[in-house]
Amino acid sequence: MLTIYGDKRSGNCLKVLYVARHLGLEWQWVDVDILAGESRKDGFLRINPAGQIPVVKLDDGRHLSQSGAILLYLARGSGLIPDDPWERALMHQWMFWEQYSHEPAIAVRRFHKLYLGKDEDQIAPTLLEKGDAALDLMEQHIASRHWFVGSSMSLADVVLVAYTRLAHEGGFDLESRPGLERWIVRVEGSLGI
Amino acid sequence: MLTIYGDKRSGNCLKVLYVARHLGLEWQWVDVDILAGESRKDGFLRINPAGQIPVVKLDDGRHLSQSGAILLYLARGSGLIPDDPWERALMHQWMFWEQYSHEPAIAVRRFHKLYLGKDEDQIAPTLLEKGDAALDLMEQHIASRHWFVGSSMSLADVVLVAYTRLAHEGGFDLESRPGLERWIVRVEGSLGI
Repeated sequence: MLTIYGDKRSGNCLKVLYVARHLGLEWQWVDVDILAGESRKDGFLRINPAGQIPVVKLDDGRHLSQSGAILLYLARGSGLIPDDPWERALMHQWMFWEQYSHEPAIAVRRFHKLYLGKDEDQIAPTLLEKGDAALDLMEQHIASRHWFVGSSMSLADVVLVAYTRLAHEGGFDLESRPGLERWIVRVEGSLGI
Repeated sequence: MLTIYGDKRSGNCLKVLYVARHLGLEWQWVDVDILAGESRKDGFLRINPAGQIPVVKLDDGRHLSQSGAILLYLARGSGLIPDDPWERALMHQWMFWEQYSHEPAIAVRRFHKLYLGKDEDQIAPTLLEKGDAALDLMEQHIASRHWFVGSSMSLADVVLVAYTRLAHEGGFDLESRPGLERWIVRVEGSLGI
């Protein structure tokens, strides 16, 4: 059985949960409270020296971290990863873009607002600008499409939806982006969220 | 022939060059001057709406961005990507970690110091802390190994070496990390840098 170490307040951890559930894997969840600093304590650092969640443990005790790497491993051979090499490349492109240009703005602003309880004026304004630019780029891409890559849901949709569906908690406006709103409903339906 | 759009001051772009050369691909290089803001101008945004380099163009005119996605596409079927699914997962883990926890500290500090000409006290101190933590993690992993994953050079080594070998330009100390220094020489030798 797969063990998932994570915090359900973290979209990166929820991605692993969504995929494990979608693929019908057997898993158990171990809570790691990031607000209590548990991912930085010695016990956890032995599991992941980088001090980050999520981490998964396989039956034989091997550990893997980084949500993107975990998803690519768990979903290998499934319909969540396109067979076509070019579609797979575009899926990787969105996965790396999400971790570099989307999550560090949208997830981080949500964290400051929702969990650290900061007022808007205590949060670096660049987070709003970068997050809005990321959402605009997504809206432009998805407005005329059903899925981010190819003709069915892939890991690109899974990683992008995790924090986009919670973006309003970070003070981002989704109502002005109707393509994104429709796509979120579509992905939530397919993932059973 | 492959067209690579990039700036040779950017380690992310150099990664693509290293792999194209290592694989013996035919390529042409198109300079995009990031300091002159060329990646944010209309002509370039039609190639990559995210306004980021590197981008590659295939013979048939299709474009791909995000260095990690480009490398995985170009190197598919080569020795740079392990056949073993677990080793491949660990390679992905290091690739995502590099883009999330290494590049945003080490490459960004180098950019501020070397290209924007900022003094140390004008640069956010967190960049030094985060970069040092990333280099420490790498030193701990590589001190007893030849390669980051498995028994030969993989894309994990390529992406990690790009900015690590230039880390001194960002004010980071490599001399206190002898495992990293030996590994850098090893990867540079294999890539012919």
